Amino acid sequence: MTLHTGRHFLQIPGPTNVPDRVLRAIDMPTLDHRGAEFAVLGHDVLAAVQRVFRTKQPVIIYPSSGTGAWEAAIVNTLSPGDKVLMSETGQFAALWLGIANKFRLDVDMLPTDWRHGAPLDLIEERLKADREHKIKAVMVVHNETSTSCVTHPLEVRKILDRTKHPALLMVDTISGLASLEYEHDAWGIDVSIAGSQKGMMLPPGLGFNAVSEKALAVSKANTSTRSYWDWHDMIAINKQGTFPYTPATNLLYGLKVAVAMLEEEGLENVWARHKRHGAATRAAVKAWGLEPVCQDPQAYSPALTAVMVPQGHDADAFRKVVLDNFDMSLGTGLGKIKGKAFRIGHLGHFNDLMLMGTLAGVEMGLDLAKVPHRTGGVAAAMEVLKGRDVVAMPKAAVA
Amino acid sequence: MTLHTGRHFLQIPGPTNVPDRVLRAIDMPTLDHRGAEFAVLGHDVLAAVQRVFRTKQPVIIYPSSGTGAWEAAIVNTLSPGDKVLMSETGQFAALWLGIANKFRLDVDMLPTDWRHGAPLDLIEERLKADREHKIKAVMVVHNETSTSCVTHPLEVRKILDRTKHPALLMVDTISGLASLEYEHDAWGIDVSIAGSQKGMMLPPGLGFNAVSEKALAVSKANTSTRSYWDWHDMIAINKQGTFPYTPATNLLYGLKVAVAMLEEEGLENVWARHKRHGAATRAAVKAWGLEPVCQDPQAYSPALTAVMVPQGHDADAFRKVVLDNFDMSLGTGLGKIKGKAFRIGHLGHFNDLMLMGTLAGVEMGLDLAKVPHRTGGVAAAMEVLKGRDVVAMPKAAVA
Repeated sequence: MTLHTGRHFLQIPGPTNVPDRVLRAIDMPTLDHRGAEFAVLGHDVLAAVQRVFRTKQPVIIYPSSGTGAWEAAIVNTLSPGDKVLMSETGQFAALWLGIANKFRLDVDMLPTDWRHGAPLDLIEERLKADREHKIKAVMVVHNETSTSCVTHPLEVRKILDRTKHPALLMVDTISGLASLEYEHDAWGIDVSIAGSQKGMMLPPGLGFNAVSEKALAVSKANTSTRSYWDWHDMIAINKQGTFPYTPATNLLYGLKVAVAMLEEEGLENVWARHKRHGAATRAAVKAWGLEPVCQDPQAYSPALTAVMVPQGHDADAFRKVVLDNFDMSLGTGLGKIKGKAFRIGHLGHFNDLMLMGTLAGVEMGLDLAKVPHRTGGVAAAMEVLKGRDVVAMPKAAVA
Repeated sequence: MTLHTGRHFLQIPGPTNVPDRVLRAIDMPTLDHRGAEFAVLGHDVLAAVQRVFRTKQPVIIYPSSGTGAWEAAIVNTLSPGDKVLMSETGQFAALWLGIANKFRLDVDMLPTDWRHGAPLDLIEERLKADREHKIKAVMVVHNETSTSCVTHPLEVRKILDRTKHPALLMVDTISGLASLEYEHDAWGIDVSIAGSQKGMMLPPGLGFNAVSEKALAVSKANTSTRSYWDWHDMIAINKQGTFPYTPATNLLYGLKVAVAMLEEEGLENVWARHKRHGAATRAAVKAWGLEPVCQDPQAYSPALTAVMVPQGHDADAFRKVVLDNFDMSLGTGLGKIKGKAFRIGHLGHFNDLMLMGTLAGVEMGLDLAKVPHRTGGVAAAMEVLKGRDVVAMPKAAVA
């Protein structure tokens, strides 16, 4: 274990910093998950996650990672040979593709340069051309955590509607939910996939699927083999506030408190806070004279900022300088931008002064690691955070 | 309760931020304080605090605040009518005087302007003039938390030695211990007074007295009434690892871990870290064009920095802006500098990026509160923290 004087700055883009209130909630004796006391908790958290996804439809809570929730979305609705449309927006889209391949889906993977969101024009083109409706699902990553480029799910929904295409819309919002605006019902999402360890401010260990009526109907008709991930067993037994197999009881204690915290702040305020921190971070990046990985200002992520290092410099060597000197973990570049980019997580349980500590660590690290840059990023971020047009941090009386 | 998105910045000069490891240690079932398992803990923590005070002599651990530890030092060694020499270095010296007055000591209180340490020349003068050795104790505050001026205890010891005066040397190091260099034995301190909630990184609730052989002899001869604070009952029963009355058991769990953390870092490294953070903070204050309360560079505190606000501005209004906008608590001005100064705590469980968040909050707050200042304090502090002459944060493998 490393020596920490003061708190470690965990500024990878997830798992994120877990609030003390959530840690305390988790730190309680495990309950009998078949007992009446548990059922009260079960009903509470099932209703709570519906509010976060903005849905009246069922949300399935798995004891799983986000990877499990990806798999669940696939095995419930699709069968080997089914055609799906995906977009390789970055490393996480590529990993989801890997699962789709294991389940022998027929994937049409639209390429990108890993510096933009999904290619909406190509998606529209493919859907238009698919007169026989062979494409069973359009699968997009909302907040691509490897590039910090956002694909707006509503834009994809609009394309499906415009082209009158019946494909399911599946959205990985693992690092989007509870950080970026998200509306499962209003945006017509069929399957939303998320995890506990990002904007939800929990340790890793819970995976979520929010499912539309249409997705449920498709899954009912889908004969492909599944057991652990089966939505219908879950939904049937969830009605009693319990689960078909052992849930991650203590994480559910934390989930209840985490959603309470999100609602005390107000989901709209949570989204606004992330936008503000994204803007301040990008102001710093601009002042440093560095280049964001994401090249489309409309696609900038409020949850994290991936930054290119100048050619001839190693992003991971820089990250090591920051860790060794300032006890801060930044995200590594993934996949094809390994060594070329680093990522600043500014999502979850976070505030202005944590961001300023983070950006100061980056600025000092750039200097110590001799990465060419201009100073002034920290000062630029402070100008954004002070912005008098921005409402001061909301306060609320809580229990 | 206030809404916190991310961690509150608790930058008052104590109570300080409690490390998670310490919180976890405290969060264990309370033990039978008369049982054998407790005795192991008792022996451990009694030895541990000796190492922090740098003494082979007994250290008494009270379930008390620092105020209790002040009283303990007085009632064990002094009787009504005894003459003592104190220095009004600030609010805490004044509060200690209040206790001395309640016990009807005959106090010679040397005045200061609250912007310097104790007046060593006057102390020497008084001791020299006291040929009959009526002065029974010289009582000084090591780190005056209201002004951030340090009185070096060794300098007072040297005066006592030079003047061959037998008075006891009593040092309040409540906000000094485990932040500033301190040597109970080597500096010839007779009674050292401390508390748990500052450099010791614990919640409030433990008071300490470290006592020299001479102080023990004086206390043995002292017939003044005391019970709770009596050193001799404590020392006798501490030999078995237990206490004469119920100790603050769970805080002792935390004490064991807190001392382990100090020793993993190394006490000398702890002192160096505080010095470095003091230097970075003063670089920021200088860049802002503000004035430290402490006017003697030799007396600058490594644990906190008190800062004057320009005339016509209210330090507490500024503090409120910082709290409302950036969820950071700064220390208020106390006593005669109420409203004229604020205090930045940089002691205890703390690191470079927590300091940068803190200083960014001060700089943004000065702007939002329209307190006249120059920008650039944050940048100046980063220059100090990057200082390539400074060794990077030490790392160690710990259990």
